Amino acid sequence: MTTNRQWIFANTPQGALTEATFRWQETPMPQPGDGEVLVRTRMLSLDPANRAWMNGATYREQVLPGDVMHGFTLGEVVASNVPDFAPGDLVDSMGGWQDYAALPAAALVKRNRRHTPELLIGVLGVTGLTAYHGLFDIGEPRPGDVVLVSAAAGAVGTIVGQLARLAGCRVVGIAGGQAKCDWLVRELGFDAAVDYKAADFHKQLRVATPNGVDVYFDNVGGVCLDAALLAMNLGGRIVCCGAVSQYDTGATGGSPLLPGVVVTKRLRMQGFIVLDYAAQQDQAEARLAGWIESGAVRSILDIVDGLENAPASLIRLLAGGNLGKMAIRVS
Amino acid sequence: MTTNRQWIFANTPQGALTEATFRWQETPMPQPGDGEVLVRTRMLSLDPANRAWMNGATYREQVLPGDVMHGFTLGEVVASNVPDFAPGDLVDSMGGWQDYAALPAAALVKRNRRHTPELLIGVLGVTGLTAYHGLFDIGEPRPGDVVLVSAAAGAVGTIVGQLARLAGCRVVGIAGGQAKCDWLVRELGFDAAVDYKAADFHKQLRVATPNGVDVYFDNVGGVCLDAALLAMNLGGRIVCCGAVSQYDTGATGGSPLLPGVVVTKRLRMQGFIVLDYAAQQDQAEARLAGWIESGAVRSILDIVDGLENAPASLIRLLAGGNLGKMAIRVS
Repeated sequence: MTTNRQWIFANTPQGALTEATFRWQETPMPQPGDGEVLVRTRMLSLDPANRAWMNGATYREQVLPGDVMHGFTLGEVVASNVPDFAPGDLVDSMGGWQDYAALPAAALVKRNRRHTPELLIGVLGVTGLTAYHGLFDIGEPRPGDVVLVSAAAGAVGTIVGQLARLAGCRVVGIAGGQAKCDWLVRELGFDAAVDYKAADFHKQLRVATPNGVDVYFDNVGGVCLDAALLAMNLGGRIVCCGAVSQYDTGATGGSPLLPGVVVTKRLRMQGFIVLDYAAQQDQAEARLAGWIESGAVRSILDIVDGLENAPASLIRLLAGGNLGKMAIRVS
Repeated sequence: MTTNRQWIFANTPQGALTEATFRWQETPMPQPGDGEVLVRTRMLSLDPANRAWMNGATYREQVLPGDVMHGFTLGEVVASNVPDFAPGDLVDSMGGWQDYAALPAAALVKRNRRHTPELLIGVLGVTGLTAYHGLFDIGEPRPGDVVLVSAAAGAVGTIVGQLARLAGCRVVGIAGGQAKCDWLVRELGFDAAVDYKAADFHKQLRVATPNGVDVYFDNVGGVCLDAALLAMNLGGRIVCCGAVSQYDTGATGGSPLLPGVVVTKRLRMQGFIVLDYAAQQDQAEARLAGWIESGAVRSILDIVDGLENAPASLIRLLAGGNLGKMAIRVS
């Protein structure tokens, strides 16, 4: 009998996440019921939002103690009781932190097998689509605009920066530590990058954006958002994609500049969830695939082998220890 | 020789505004130079923004100690050295807290003498245009939407609520004290009004908005913005018009819900300044005038006679002691 290895969400963390939040469990592989498909996890996506799901309802249900830890996965169909799916199909789903999941067909999205699992979970997955729709549909960059992005060395940030360059913008990244900043400029073509952990962060940002900021793509909230609010030009757009700085620390946003500066600078702060753009997924995916194939956009991956490493890897992600898209290669 | 009575901005207030911020002065009436027009103040507009101008640069220059206190005025031309203006013309300008100002023609906007000074300074002035453009161009209400407005019994709020009713929306006001709340429902046709000073404010708001809020017109920031963020529906719009709660107290905004809830609820928070809509002023003014004439919109005025009462009146305004548009009848 085949074993299904699982990470159980054991208890709600108080403060920063630790491995004690999770409990390892081995159970028999599930059997698909009527209308269900048995999916084997190939890649497990690790995302800062995973941490937010533990704190309460967000744009989706809360993770509750006792659940197999929720997670977005790229899987391969191994058995199917529905005509639309066949063994060998690659599928997106909320498969969770486990080897196998038996899921209703409606919970699966079939992916193009022409692409590698690494691309499908990254640039051609939720990560890339988040960058694409957030930047273009919410940020509305024009050539010559200055685009600032926080968590610039992360999964979404690395793509946002490259897409903004394609759109003819000057691109400035915010990242933690000089090494990441240097890497963004040297390897990804950012025009500049500034270190939010540095004592002279605000000064670095002013030097890097002498003409202000037109679009700020915010993945983190907190001190980066505050600094961006000070740098924004009149009529600037703030893409509210995430608030990572608040997820793991209990720190609150609480910018003293809000909402006053939104009025005086006529800013637009707008949130979005990539799921809202499902109808445009095929077009966005085709464009991203074309840019990957032409070399115009690079896929930056931080892949860890082995489901057993998921908790430590999520902890590293939340501490900013990744470069690019982090995922677990499960099988 | 005619005297020009003036209130000088004597010193920058620390904390809440007091009359000691201002100094009374009498000087000779100025003479208009080449290209200038001599304007006599008829009505002096008092606005919460006057207080923000004392704290630093906003969307305009800071008021500096020694200045005649800045203020928006409706004036009458008494002498003119330019062909476009003649004695008797009514003009908008930043005439300040004084009887007379000699101003360059470019600083004046001629108004339609068909309307009373009270309408021109209120519903047909900056106040009404702020409500009109903020609600329709930023809030984008649709029939059936729930529109929430703070400082609902104030100059802008009383108009926003009435315009939202015309747009087929359910209108809920936030005001300070039960008397104002009752007045909004009884006299202005609000569907409900809630008292932000009440201990059960959040509960009142939940009862008044069982289906959530689609458009929040924010004049105040602070606790009202926080409560609105909790009540917003997915895809809701927040019109950032002002942050009165921060102007007079040094209190900071600092909502712990920002920016996280903007992401999860896909909100749009957008600021604006009515001056950005100058090109559409004639159309907006014509519509507002039509609604006033038909009785669809009521002009709510809190007019105080005498320039000498300007400081005490601004202090009362900042404390929420007004109903509707506050202005000083100077002459």
